[in-house]
Amino acid sequence: MQKQITAQNTLAVTTKIVLPNDCNTLGNLMGGNLLSWLDLNSAVSAHRFCKRVVVTATVNHVAFDHAIKLGDFVTIESKVSRSFNSSMEVYSDVYVEHHTTGRKIKCNEAIYTFVAVDQLGSPIEVPELVPETDLEKERFAAALRRRQLSLILAKKMKPNDATELKNLFS
Amino acid sequence: MQKQITAQNTLAVTTKIVLPNDCNTLGNLMGGNLLSWLDLNSAVSAHRFCKRVVVTATVNHVAFDHAIKLGDFVTIESKVSRSFNSSMEVYSDVYVEHHTTGRKIKCNEAIYTFVAVDQLGSPIEVPELVPETDLEKERFAAALRRRQLSLILAKKMKPNDATELKNLFS
Amino acid sequence: MQKQITAQNTLAVTTKIVLPNDCNTLGNLMGGNLLSWLDLNSAVSAHRFCKRVVVTATVNHVAFDHAIKLGDFVTIESKVSRSFNSSMEVYSDVYVEHHTTGRKIKCNEAIYTFVAVDQLGSPIEVPELVPETDLEKERFAAALRRRQLSLILAKKMKPNDATELKNLFS
Amino acid sequence: MQKQITAQNTLAVTTKIVLPNDCNTLGNLMGGNLLSWLDLNSAVSAHRFCKRVVVTATVNHVAFDHAIKLGDFVTIESKVSRSFNSSMEVYSDVYVEHHTTGRKIKCNEAIYTFVAVDQLGSPIEVPELVPETDLEKERFAAALRRRQLSLILAKKMKPNDATELKNLFS
Amino acid sequence: MQKQITAQNTLAVTTKIVLPNDCNTLGNLMGGNLLSWLDLNSAVSAHRFCKRVVVTATVNHVAFDHAIKLGDFVTIESKVSRSFNSSMEVYSDVYVEHHTTGRKIKCNEAIYTFVAVDQLGSPIEVPELVPETDLEKERFAAALRRRQLSLILAKKMKPNDATELKNLFS
Amino acid sequence: MQKQITAQNTLAVTTKIVLPNDCNTLGNLMGGNLLSWLDLNSAVSAHRFCKRVVVTATVNHVAFDHAIKLGDFVTIESKVSRSFNSSMEVYSDVYVEHHTTGRKIKCNEAIYTFVAVDQLGSPIEVPELVPETDLEKERFAAALRRRQLSLILAKKMKPNDATELKNLFS
Repeated sequence: MQKQITAQNTLAVTTKIVLPNDCNTLGNLMGGNLLSWLDLNSAVSAHRFCKRVVVTATVNHVAFDHAIKLGDFVTIESKVSRSFNSSMEVYSDVYVEHHTTGRKIKCNEAIYTFVAVDQLGSPIEVPELVPETDLEKERFAAALRRRQLSLILAKKMKPNDATELKNLFS
Repeated sequence: MQKQITAQNTLAVTTKIVLPNDCNTLGNLMGGNLLSWLDLNSAVSAHRFCKRVVVTATVNHVAFDHAIKLGDFVTIESKVSRSFNSSMEVYSDVYVEHHTTGRKIKCNEAIYTFVAVDQLGSPIEVPELVPETDLEKERFAAALRRRQLSLILAKKMKPNDATELKNLFS
Repeated sequence: MQKQITAQNTLAVTTKIVLPNDCNTLGNLMGGNLLSWLDLNSAVSAHRFCKRVVVTATVNHVAFDHAIKLGDFVTIESKVSRSFNSSMEVYSDVYVEHHTTGRKIKCNEAIYTFVAVDQLGSPIEVPELVPETDLEKERFAAALRRRQLSLILAKKMKPNDATELKNLFS
Repeated sequence: MQKQITAQNTLAVTTKIVLPNDCNTLGNLMGGNLLSWLDLNSAVSAHRFCKRVVVTATVNHVAFDHAIKLGDFVTIESKVSRSFNSSMEVYSDVYVEHHTTGRKIKCNEAIYTFVAVDQLGSPIEVPELVPETDLEKERFAAALRRRQLSLILAKKMKPNDATELKNLFS
Repeated sequence: MQKQITAQNTLAVTTKIVLPNDCNTLGNLMGGNLLSWLDLNSAVSAHRFCKRVVVTATVNHVAFDHAIKLGDFVTIESKVSRSFNSSMEVYSDVYVEHHTTGRKIKCNEAIYTFVAVDQLGSPIEVPELVPETDLEKERFAAALRRRQLSLILAKKMKPNDATELKNLFS
Repeated sequence: MQKQITAQNTLAVTTKIVLPNDCNTLGNLMGGNLLSWLDLNSAVSAHRFCKRVVVTATVNHVAFDHAIKLGDFVTIESKVSRSFNSSMEVYSDVYVEHHTTGRKIKCNEAIYTFVAVDQLGSPIEVPELVPETDLEKERFAAALRRRQLSLILAKKMKPNDATELKNLFS
């Protein structure tokens, strides 16, 4: 029987201070740096889930809705949201702290998928993810739709077989 | 009348050598570094198109199908594929060179969108993109479908209004 | 009355992956890199406590008892242990995760002190730290002895006035 | 008979220019960067003394009394102050140059200890340090008190056996 | 018969954005960073020419006539200009883009030479470079004079044997 | 009367440890990194001479005759060799230490020139350099020939006016 691990046990947290070289000429964090920080923190979460070397497989749609400024404290919290054979979807929330109140403001969400590999780089099976909270369950369910969309975009699934996704348009 | 710029005039090219700190313990380029390089090169392309400060708005689905190794020469070629009011979609192709033949091998594609902003960070109108080659025209057409999907995911468009996208499932 | 903040509310966590450039020729994390990571994470904790710009004032004795290896996942957990007027002592624990079991192994402790400053760099008063757990209370008490030792070493206190410290030798 | 090396023969010097990414939002060098630079320069000194791979063992109390500013030229001068079996204490002085007069201003002192190791990481014996100047002799003598304090803090020596240190409180 | 490769086939292009840490206190790109970028891009060009590991052999006279500013987009275009047994001369042009017109302004030229080596670091023969455009032919011819000057400076050729160079002074 | 400063008073020394990211796939220090380190250390020397902001003007011929390896300790010693109105020639020697004997091996020489500028970037007059040792005097004399060659290459002097240089070919 497949090993089961709760979402909470895959939590990875990191806090970064935005330095001058991370910013564009308007003093805003450049998107590419955040993408790189997200990749590393998501990889830590995926590793905590499967205890194997993990490699980035895909980056889903990421939107940069809120500008992050020079000197900001950026906290990234990542959890595995669902697993499929040898792949894992990792869902990350990005927060910035208000300087004087300390209140955490949600800035971004990002979804990466990783594949667990052995020392030769071949994919290997990963445990089963167990969502517990309402938010974890919601993200677990949505992960299936995202996977179908991903397979369609990669031309590995026919749109009409993507039952979950098709409902969006019916 | 809106200014027109050809896709070819937005071409940005960069070549990077993969160094030890860019790699995971298997000696493969970590995804986050490639995402960061893609962001910078795409920003150069978007800037060449609109001649304004540009900020990353979204990253579309990116797949890491081919491992890139320590010591590889990675070339990124980015072109604006379509513009919408104040935003631009930039399409990037990633190549690695075979060490002894020099043949370029296509490894990845990535699509980022940028917004042109003034010195206060407010969005400003950009020129119109003119595709010329068959590939540029194909990517120009697909950009509309991607934009509709992006608006749906951001809950700024109803699925049934996404005429281009809906055809996929009919 | 002075504002009170619990130790738990000052917790700062960060996880780093040890990369090739962080290591010496034996493949061990170089001490200076860990010192730098500790400084940043401790500063985040101090900032969460006082919500002001903080500057490093002193580094207490730090021992590198366990080698940390290339590829290790290093987690630093920092909390303010006590405050004195405008300064804060921050206590950090360093853990490494076992690659296949995921078990966290304690590697190091480090104690830094910070001073809260205004925009001119002048020291300003900070809140009062409230310890809750046994460990927090123990570190709170020991912080006074460390402060006396620190003042003696800086020749700002006479050894015989360091009542807490003197007991060690009686 | 144990090899003897003078303190002067272990001198390591390095000068760094403080760049934007080294600074906090007040434009002051962040403490962690100086700690990292001190570690590298001290390691060079320890290596010159013993001609073996050296690893950082402890960092003694370091105080950041003087702010170092963006654009400053920071010079670190490190010398081995005393050796004990397989370990070496390295004493570093930190100077900043006045921009128009060029006068060197002493900013900090720092004391690190290193252990010499073989290719398996096992400690190996180091030469004997010979102090020559008055300052070298003073630091040589004080190194013994610091070592006793360090052993007490690590609970490897009883306070009452620390004869050198005990005198401070009598 | 020796393999022939056209100069155009050795073209390497890279674009960099000048970030805060690349600049001095006047906000100008520091020369050493440009030298390092030139080295990497020239190495890519040399590698495309000979398909072997290449190591930097010499840097010819480089002049920094135009200041490059923070935020500038710097494009480096490098081509092999001539080959000699196991060495290659690479000629690079450096451009900066005007922010609002996008016009490329020539800022610098630089000439590096590389040697092709096998896995033991021993020099190995490289192909023959074929110049096609007028500029490529002019640089091809001048490369011989530069090589003679280089051999004289290294005391491997007598000034009177440097027929090409001697003509300059007759 | 122009201020006079001895060459010894312009000495700048720095020691770097060669890390993985500084090296090519053969484990040799990449030339561009050494060029960048030389630029920074030479700038420190030029600044010590004139106490003003200095900008790199030219890099003279630099030859990489000896490979520098991963883990090597590289020491750069730079001194101003001669001054001309607002410019200074800085001569650097590069040494590597033998790991077990500690013997310093001379690996490279490099010559950079800098210009002293005011806050607007305009050139300003610098002091007069006074050579004292035989080597300093020899480099002082040769600096004039190098300057003439530099002016010829920049087409600011006619070859026949370069009296010092012309003698080489007579």
